[in-house]
Amino acid sequence: MPTLEFFRLQTREEVLALYSRFAPVGAEEVDLAGALGRVLAAAAPAPEDVPGFLRATMDGYAVKAADTFGASVGAPQYLELKGEVPMGAVPARPVAGGEALRVPTGAMLPPGADAVVMLEYTAEHPDRTLEVRRPVAPGENVLQPGEDVGRGEVLFAAGSRLRPQDLGLLAALGVTRLSVHRRPRVAIWSSGDEIVPITQQPGPGQVRDSNAYLAAAQVAQWGGIPDIKGIIPDDFSALKDALVATLPEADLILISGGSSVGARDLTLEAIKALLGAEVLVHGVALRPGKPTILAAVGQPPLPLLGLPGHPASAAVVMEVLGRPLLARLAGLAAAPPWGREVPALLSRNLAGASGREDFVRVKLRREGVTLWADPVLGPSGLLSPLVKSDGLVMIPLGLEGLLRGEAVTVRLFS
Amino acid sequence: MPTLEFFRLQTREEVLALYSRFAPVGAEEVDLAGALGRVLAAAAPAPEDVPGFLRATMDGYAVKAADTFGASVGAPQYLELKGEVPMGAVPARPVAGGEALRVPTGAMLPPGADAVVMLEYTAEHPDRTLEVRRPVAPGENVLQPGEDVGRGEVLFAAGSRLRPQDLGLLAALGVTRLSVHRRPRVAIWSSGDEIVPITQQPGPGQVRDSNAYLAAAQVAQWGGIPDIKGIIPDDFSALKDALVATLPEADLILISGGSSVGARDLTLEAIKALLGAEVLVHGVALRPGKPTILAAVGQPPLPLLGLPGHPASAAVVMEVLGRPLLARLAGLAAAPPWGREVPALLSRNLAGASGREDFVRVKLRREGVTLWADPVLGPSGLLSPLVKSDGLVMIPLGLEGLLRGEAVTVRLFS
Repeated sequence: MPTLEFFRLQTREEVLALYSRFAPVGAEEVDLAGALGRVLAAAAPAPEDVPGFLRATMDGYAVKAADTFGASVGAPQYLELKGEVPMGAVPARPVAGGEALRVPTGAMLPPGADAVVMLEYTAEHPDRTLEVRRPVAPGENVLQPGEDVGRGEVLFAAGSRLRPQDLGLLAALGVTRLSVHRRPRVAIWSSGDEIVPITQQPGPGQVRDSNAYLAAAQVAQWGGIPDIKGIIPDDFSALKDALVATLPEADLILISGGSSVGARDLTLEAIKALLGAEVLVHGVALRPGKPTILAAVGQPPLPLLGLPGHPASAAVVMEVLGRPLLARLAGLAAAPPWGREVPALLSRNLAGASGREDFVRVKLRREGVTLWADPVLGPSGLLSPLVKSDGLVMIPLGLEGLLRGEAVTVRLFS
Repeated sequence: MPTLEFFRLQTREEVLALYSRFAPVGAEEVDLAGALGRVLAAAAPAPEDVPGFLRATMDGYAVKAADTFGASVGAPQYLELKGEVPMGAVPARPVAGGEALRVPTGAMLPPGADAVVMLEYTAEHPDRTLEVRRPVAPGENVLQPGEDVGRGEVLFAAGSRLRPQDLGLLAALGVTRLSVHRRPRVAIWSSGDEIVPITQQPGPGQVRDSNAYLAAAQVAQWGGIPDIKGIIPDDFSALKDALVATLPEADLILISGGSSVGARDLTLEAIKALLGAEVLVHGVALRPGKPTILAAVGQPPLPLLGLPGHPASAAVVMEVLGRPLLARLAGLAAAPPWGREVPALLSRNLAGASGREDFVRVKLRREGVTLWADPVLGPSGLLSPLVKSDGLVMIPLGLEGLLRGEAVTVRLFS
């Protein structure tokens, strides 16, 4: 029986291991207000202490804690009230033994004070005497300088993606400009004589260019800058010229090859004809996704990912191989899996693909405390099952399949 | 013993129930290429069939399936090869009984053909005879018109947020413009005499305006358009004027009140003085987050959320109360919890807050197959524990606490 295996299929792990050949993109400076989701190019040590001063965390009275020792409702301590510290102001005077100054939450403690007695455990008498009904320990109801972050402390490592709370803390530290990796520029080509622009009514035998829009949205979601370049006919020179034109302006080139073997061969030939081209992968042990190509092209070499022509196959290859490649280029450190993956039980038997890792689309369904993964079946060329799905379940290489009730990990589309 | 409970605390559930008073924002039309993450304002039924024609899913030969019945390697069937269907073209002729046309994957099947025999189960002979070594069933290796999506089918309901694969399918359908909810405009105010802009070096007793940057990033992450308005001193007229100025240009107003009781009272008075103001919530049974305010202000009424002054408390209130409010305004239908929540085991005992739901910051840690939630302790006013955390664990109202080893649900920051 003849076979279509003209090349050795590489495993997903083998493909991922090749990504170390490609360097992360360079750095740029951005304003804090625009830094959400960006990836730090260098660690950001704290330039100063937060808070910068001894601060009250409760409304009350700044005191020397020792003056309150032994105080109780039955036997209060009495202190001399010496005024107050206005919010945001420098205290006008220190606190000496036997004295108290009124402070609002957030105010600076006067020199000499080491604690705050909460308002509700006190009473002010008309003669400017403060009655204290509970003792406080030194340091109680105050924040020490540097207690939140100490100067020089590294809370933000290179390669970390900035979240809202990270920006909040950087704002508190006065860090208004950040060195982050550029967002990788991703040129997106579609090829195939049957492909027409999405604004066009396809004639018989033609289909719209959905691949480019799907890939562009994935790139944007994962932090890249997508650039939809257009449609190339199944023609060697047209393919080569298009790719050459994109080399100077991209950090990653995506091209979804035609769906037929002939069209895919043309794409491969055009890639091989590029300056410095090295085809690293031609065929991956994945279902869907076997006809995937990975090449290094140009000088310095940048990655080119050749995607299958079927839109739904291309989408899965982007999730499984494109996303980690983009993360590598973006300078992102390995992210923890929670939130990206959830455990579930498989709701029916699934046969695997012999000799390939099989990625099956699933919809999640909660039943009591159990999360079920319902496979959404249908040919890999269809988009609607992907739209009805929440994520992917992998049937590992070498397994004949998975059984109903088996515990699986669902990689969420997010 | 005196108490600071001047008002009845409302539960989180009570607050969430009030959100139905606020209408989602209106709709606008956007291009497909810019629709990622947007929320559909109306269901989008399929305007046409996908695919639009009977399509080959394999490289091979278009045939009448009945002509192949009984074919085997030992006893092949022989068909007359009548040429090929080029990619993206209309077949030049139909397939009659005993005939075959060569077709690439993705090509249109000629009239009369109802299946495709895969290339590898055939041989072409020099006399234009096709040898078929395996039978195909009618419909095998082809996609029926409308098999992916049927015309009129509703795959996209109003209130759904558009993902990459959704845009891919809409592109395939030729839907290039979409009616989506506007992104809610969120005006963000900070108040407090002690607050200085983040570009400024704080003097003694002053702190930088971190709240606004944190909230703005949260709003952006959740699909809103943040607008950082600035800092208002603790002054009734200044507060009122600032809020009045924002009424016409916002769908939601956020104001982080001062951290002292006096500053918060001032904020409340200014809110009450607004046109049509109705204070719906003043104090929530949450820790952190007790001093939270919810009001309806202006005509038509829009929501105003008064956040605690402590940045970390404000961040938690935004997660727990602000995010669902923004989702309501954005027209978002209830989203499934997976990916947003993960199950974990608590790694130490946690005491709850009497009479309040307690949200505790946790860091996740995988140990074998177990995911541990490690509480990240520290005063609620600190930002660094929030930066070190992956999410929040709730200690429910009425529970004294949670025990080490207890199963908890972690709400992820994402």
